[in-house]
Amino acid sequence: MARKARPALTQLGHATRLPASPAAAVLERIPNSQPRERYLVRFACPEFTSICPVTGQPDFAHLVIDYVPKAWLVESKSLKLYLGSFRNHGAFHEDCTIAIGKRLVDELKPHWLRIAGYWYPRGGIPIDVFWQTGAPPRDLWLPDPGVAPYRGRG
Amino acid sequence: MARKARPALTQLGHATRLPASPAAAVLERIPNSQPRERYLVRFACPEFTSICPVTGQPDFAHLVIDYVPKAWLVESKSLKLYLGSFRNHGAFHEDCTIAIGKRLVDELKPHWLRIAGYWYPRGGIPIDVFWQTGAPPRDLWLPDPGVAPYRGRG
Amino acid sequence: MARKARPALTQLGHATRLPASPAAAVLERIPNSQPRERYLVRFACPEFTSICPVTGQPDFAHLVIDYVPKAWLVESKSLKLYLGSFRNHGAFHEDCTIAIGKRLVDELKPHWLRIAGYWYPRGGIPIDVFWQTGAPPRDLWLPDPGVAPYRGRG
Amino acid sequence: MARKARPALTQLGHATRLPASPAAAVLERIPNSQPRERYLVRFACPEFTSICPVTGQPDFAHLVIDYVPKAWLVESKSLKLYLGSFRNHGAFHEDCTIAIGKRLVDELKPHWLRIAGYWYPRGGIPIDVFWQTGAPPRDLWLPDPGVAPYRGRG
Amino acid sequence: MARKARPALTQLGHATRLPASPAAAVLERIPNSQPRERYLVRFACPEFTSICPVTGQPDFAHLVIDYVPKAWLVESKSLKLYLGSFRNHGAFHEDCTIAIGKRLVDELKPHWLRIAGYWYPRGGIPIDVFWQTGAPPRDLWLPDPGVAPYRGRG
Amino acid sequence: MARKARPALTQLGHATRLPASPAAAVLERIPNSQPRERYLVRFACPEFTSICPVTGQPDFAHLVIDYVPKAWLVESKSLKLYLGSFRNHGAFHEDCTIAIGKRLVDELKPHWLRIAGYWYPRGGIPIDVFWQTGAPPRDLWLPDPGVAPYRGRG
Amino acid sequence: MARKARPALTQLGHATRLPASPAAAVLERIPNSQPRERYLVRFACPEFTSICPVTGQPDFAHLVIDYVPKAWLVESKSLKLYLGSFRNHGAFHEDCTIAIGKRLVDELKPHWLRIAGYWYPRGGIPIDVFWQTGAPPRDLWLPDPGVAPYRGRG
Amino acid sequence: MARKARPALTQLGHATRLPASPAAAVLERIPNSQPRERYLVRFACPEFTSICPVTGQPDFAHLVIDYVPKAWLVESKSLKLYLGSFRNHGAFHEDCTIAIGKRLVDELKPHWLRIAGYWYPRGGIPIDVFWQTGAPPRDLWLPDPGVAPYRGRG
Amino acid sequence: MARKARPALTQLGHATRLPASPAAAVLERIPNSQPRERYLVRFACPEFTSICPVTGQPDFAHLVIDYVPKAWLVESKSLKLYLGSFRNHGAFHEDCTIAIGKRLVDELKPHWLRIAGYWYPRGGIPIDVFWQTGAPPRDLWLPDPGVAPYRGRG
Amino acid sequence: MARKARPALTQLGHATRLPASPAAAVLERIPNSQPRERYLVRFACPEFTSICPVTGQPDFAHLVIDYVPKAWLVESKSLKLYLGSFRNHGAFHEDCTIAIGKRLVDELKPHWLRIAGYWYPRGGIPIDVFWQTGAPPRDLWLPDPGVAPYRGRG
Ligand SMILES: [Ca+2]
Ligand SMILES: [Ca+2]
Ligand SMILES: [Ca+2]
Ligand SMILES: [Ca+2]
Ligand SMILES: [Ca+2]
Ligand SMILES: [Ca+2]
Ligand SMILES: [Ca+2]
Ligand SMILES: [Ca+2]
Ligand SMILES: [Ca+2]
Ligand SMILES: [Ca+2]
Ligand SMILES: [Ca+2]
Ligand SMILES: [Ca+2]
Ligand SMILES: [Ca+2]
Ligand SMILES: [Ca+2]
Ligand SMILES: [Ca+2]
Ligand SMILES: [Ca+2]
Repeated sequence: MARKARPALTQLGHATRLPASPAAAVLERIPNSQPRERYLVRFACPEFTSICPVTGQPDFAHLVIDYVPKAWLVESKSLKLYLGSFRNHGAFHEDCTIAIGKRLVDELKPHWLRIAGYWYPRGGIPIDVFWQTGAPPRDLWLPDPGVAPYRGRG
Repeated sequence: MARKARPALTQLGHATRLPASPAAAVLERIPNSQPRERYLVRFACPEFTSICPVTGQPDFAHLVIDYVPKAWLVESKSLKLYLGSFRNHGAFHEDCTIAIGKRLVDELKPHWLRIAGYWYPRGGIPIDVFWQTGAPPRDLWLPDPGVAPYRGRG
Repeated sequence: MARKARPALTQLGHATRLPASPAAAVLERIPNSQPRERYLVRFACPEFTSICPVTGQPDFAHLVIDYVPKAWLVESKSLKLYLGSFRNHGAFHEDCTIAIGKRLVDELKPHWLRIAGYWYPRGGIPIDVFWQTGAPPRDLWLPDPGVAPYRGRG
Repeated sequence: MARKARPALTQLGHATRLPASPAAAVLERIPNSQPRERYLVRFACPEFTSICPVTGQPDFAHLVIDYVPKAWLVESKSLKLYLGSFRNHGAFHEDCTIAIGKRLVDELKPHWLRIAGYWYPRGGIPIDVFWQTGAPPRDLWLPDPGVAPYRGRG
Repeated sequence: MARKARPALTQLGHATRLPASPAAAVLERIPNSQPRERYLVRFACPEFTSICPVTGQPDFAHLVIDYVPKAWLVESKSLKLYLGSFRNHGAFHEDCTIAIGKRLVDELKPHWLRIAGYWYPRGGIPIDVFWQTGAPPRDLWLPDPGVAPYRGRG
Repeated sequence: MARKARPALTQLGHATRLPASPAAAVLERIPNSQPRERYLVRFACPEFTSICPVTGQPDFAHLVIDYVPKAWLVESKSLKLYLGSFRNHGAFHEDCTIAIGKRLVDELKPHWLRIAGYWYPRGGIPIDVFWQTGAPPRDLWLPDPGVAPYRGRG
Repeated sequence: MARKARPALTQLGHATRLPASPAAAVLERIPNSQPRERYLVRFACPEFTSICPVTGQPDFAHLVIDYVPKAWLVESKSLKLYLGSFRNHGAFHEDCTIAIGKRLVDELKPHWLRIAGYWYPRGGIPIDVFWQTGAPPRDLWLPDPGVAPYRGRG
Repeated sequence: MARKARPALTQLGHATRLPASPAAAVLERIPNSQPRERYLVRFACPEFTSICPVTGQPDFAHLVIDYVPKAWLVESKSLKLYLGSFRNHGAFHEDCTIAIGKRLVDELKPHWLRIAGYWYPRGGIPIDVFWQTGAPPRDLWLPDPGVAPYRGRG
Repeated sequence: MARKARPALTQLGHATRLPASPAAAVLERIPNSQPRERYLVRFACPEFTSICPVTGQPDFAHLVIDYVPKAWLVESKSLKLYLGSFRNHGAFHEDCTIAIGKRLVDELKPHWLRIAGYWYPRGGIPIDVFWQTGAPPRDLWLPDPGVAPYRGRG
Repeated sequence: MARKARPALTQLGHATRLPASPAAAVLERIPNSQPRERYLVRFACPEFTSICPVTGQPDFAHLVIDYVPKAWLVESKSLKLYLGSFRNHGAFHEDCTIAIGKRLVDELKPHWLRIAGYWYPRGGIPIDVFWQTGAPPRDLWLPDPGVAPYRGRG
């Protein structure tokens, strides 16, 4: 099976440390064993945190990443470490969400990718950011992620 | 019926203005027509707003008020106006919630009263304040108000 | 079986009209076929409406009635008609809720009864009224009715 | 990074007061650092209140604002202050919702914008207002905001 | 502002009585102050009741009305009174729902209108009726009303 | 009104018995009083049960039936009796669901009809069956029925 | 293990037919392999149906049965068949619920048992029946079954 | 009826064992008795488990399978056994989900099929996989399965 | 810190295999670093599966385990492996749930422990099993686990 | 008002940095302006993260803190900073939760305090930790926080 042959995974099955920054994080990929199928892979990431570049205070977000792989799949432990690398990194909500999307596109060259960043409220108002590489491929099944809306209290 | 005989209601059935401050608000009361019954009256007030005394910025809360009337019921239009009178009033969360409870106790002399203030999050953390005049009367039915917990996003 | 022997039911199995007022409504009862058991009967009544005695406008409520029968059960069609008889009747929220409870106690002489009136919001604030005849009988199972709290919008 | 160079922000990082009216509020903008991307930014604003121009009584709404930025992003603290400036401003539901949408369009010149105003019930009936500048841009991901419907009680 | 100039409103700001029948109800309208915008106005009406023309028993429904105004808005107090006028009026579910829709179309001449009637179960089966004047205008935002399905118990 | 003129209804307003089988059930129809309108009628039927033709054990389903009437409406009491007639009838899930849909089409000759059968789990796996007569009529409003998915426990 | 030794189970592992009536149903029991432990067993039974003894029409209920076994456990296939035997049996809601509870007590001689019958609405009002053999044993964990309340539509 | 004539079912109505592997599992099929209808059959499978091929630890998933049958229906007991055969089988999430879909396509030659695999979280991040054979047939009703999103805690 | 000194953990930080049976599983423990505090530890285990000893078919359950540690905490990786060891083990629902509880009591000698097993439905009826070692310690906070009830479909 | 007189607050109203560790964090307190009232203050903290001391990987939790103040209230900005100081701090779930509770007790000397830590799942199993200083004060209202249970997928 294609995955067993992957030669150079440096993180899966090894002890790892949280990368010091997104730039230092290594996003590893493995061959897509179903390269002729158009299918969607969705990651829900409720454990995302970064630093506000203005105040130095922590920000939190719930991310949902959808992509249609071409030749490569992202190795999921390396995805976890990449997302963890924002822990001490300063980033605005809009920039940060889109930057993650673009980095994944760079590494994976997928048919299509999109990302949603559901940021925790600041000043009583949460911000959601929705970005995708273009129209979804035709004939793809792409269900609504169904993330609950923010509603304050009551 | 007792309510029809109430002589001096100045707000119900009249054009009214929002009182300029809690102190200016007139909380009116009407005779309890069921004075020998122990029963609970609950108000849910999702339209409460006041001003942060430190920053001058608006605060919002969802209030739930429960009481067991003795001789008096609060006239509900005057309750609405009283709560509306906090609109331009500076108040801390804990103080404000308890002050409303105490004012109602002063006016109504109920068997028992409690108040919950579910404040909207600031700094990522909402504050809830729960105050009551003492243990609830025995043999009273007092269901949980069931207000949803805050959970950020996701 | 006791129910088949009931001689004088005038409503069940007959064409009926909505009674013109609560006073005109006939609450019929049937023998409790399990008179030695302590058990709870709960009615949920989301189709209740009456008239505001001050404005003449309709009011709506969701009622929940719980009782522990002694010798009699309320015949449920007559309960429906009795509740329907408030359609053109003026009544305040607190009075109305408790009056329904007391009428049922008069007719049924139950071991115990309680009523909850969850009234639709007026002036942005709904009123709930909770009344019971006393502490519930010991060793009774009395689950929370679980009615959702009001929360405005969002 | 573009945001650091913004020269004239007068509110972010400064002590601010609630503007006296929408006209007095300054909506500030910052350069969109991803100007070549079509992406959606969503704000959920459960802390909105204004004044009924007929009765002088407070109104409350839950707003959801979606836009696709072109050259500018709205600075979110200034958005919060702008929305807060309706606190003592008289406005009808339909006018108010659309006016906020238009003001944002004027300031931001976005590719597209829409606004939903979910107003709290008056007279037992809430009003929702949905407005957008036109059809959404093609190839944009625009998930349903999922705001809960109003259902009275029960 | 256009609304202030409306000359002949006979209900808003006046004491009113529930009209005796739909035919007797006066649906008043006010000029649409945003006549060049295509926007949606939604009313949720959980307080609707009428009479079954066969049995004379009350029926209840939850109505949702959506419309895109052209020259006129419905004055919402008159809408409330119009809906209240069905209280003693006999009407079948399908007829009644569509008749309300048509009456509003007659009065308002909107770009488009639709109505949903979610009727309470009879015989264990609720009926929903969905009617609209035609395809929705292009480029309109028309979110799903999200009314919960009926599911019996459990 | 058309409905009053219906000459031959044998079930509505009469004492009825559960038909012994679907074949024995009489589905009655009444003239559609709004024959020029395209509108949708939805029935939710959570009280459906039939017999497994292999094991003789009961099966249960929650049915949702949507149709766009042409000349006829189904008389709803006869629909209830028709569905009740499956009580002692053996039928597979797929066949049964579609057979009900076809029978209704035969009787009503509607513009369009669809049926969903949400069957209770057997062997840990529930089956849903979705059938319709063709593409829905254009310009029809056809909201999602929103039936909750099965999810086991937890 | 005790269960393997059970000699006379006539239903489990055999082809069975639905018993013709509750009286004909055989409730089988197996030895409690943990007879010294006080523990609770809960069955949720959303597939219950019986016949109204007055109208001959089907009734439906969602049952929840809780018991603390002493020497015996109920064999669950025989419980399913016993409940299925009410399919063509006439029974009033209160009688039926309590009769099932008593039959189980007769067969199992448990430390304690209770039953809840959540009946589907008739005449717009559902009835719940809650019965138990007495106060629950001390030191037992007995969580709320959490069955959703009935609320009509909306 | 076609199903009764099926000659060679080896599992339904027989004692069966869990197949030792997916390759050893026999997926049986029965003739589609409604071969001229386009309809959808949905299976929800919350009881799926397999083995991680890297770590040997169990994985869990909730599967939803939708298909439009042509000549054949899958016999549901054999589907259950086939899914159960992954219990001791090593498989990656993406491969496993798509392999199940393809196997069903091979056996059933349906008009169309799709599968969703909602995998339980590992490393704080769950993976969903969505695959289908192509665009859904026109004029098919294909409601959203409505599976809840993952959201961590809170 | 006490945990670092634990000498003989054989599973945490090591590659492990799923134990072949519960008897073969090693439940490891670590010193409770807060031995003088009465506190509750709760595990939710939605990934539990075992084998029906009669049919050889898989069973699934959602387990919730609560305990108040005395000298020892359970090492959570060993708990996961212990629960995983039931994968090929035959066990009845009641026995299995209680046996897990007792094994944990044996290993941990806690102040108190309880377990809930929420088993997936078989024959249309799920079984829940609730067992605890006795009354909970006084002055302990023990919130309801809030597991959703089973309700079939609809 | 007491709060205005607090002399030495070093964080509120000042630019602050995230403290480097819990030990370095300064928890500031302000006088309780209602020292004679027994009332509850609840904080919900969905933005908590720390580091696993064994693996160096991030952990996430949702915390709920309840306390009954005596002489002091915690200043909420300092609470936010204190919780943020765990960002780069290694801590086990049980230790960490209880340590936060104890630190607050040390600083505030409240009448009573409790803390719940709802940790995100690891190895498929989340851990909840519930600790309190003793039995809650009598006559206190202490509603259930209502945090949703973990349930995997589906
Ligand atoms: Ca959605
Ligand atoms: Ca709100
Ligand atoms: Ca609660
Ligand atoms: Ca969260
Ligand atoms: Ca509750
Ligand atoms: Ca929606
Ligand atoms: Ca929907
Ligand atoms: Ca059901
Ligand atoms: Ca849906
Ligand atoms: Ca409950
Ligand atoms: Ca309702
Ligand atoms: Ca969805
Ligand atoms: Ca519960
Ligand atoms: Ca609960
Ligand atoms: Ca709870
Ligand atoms: Ca599950």
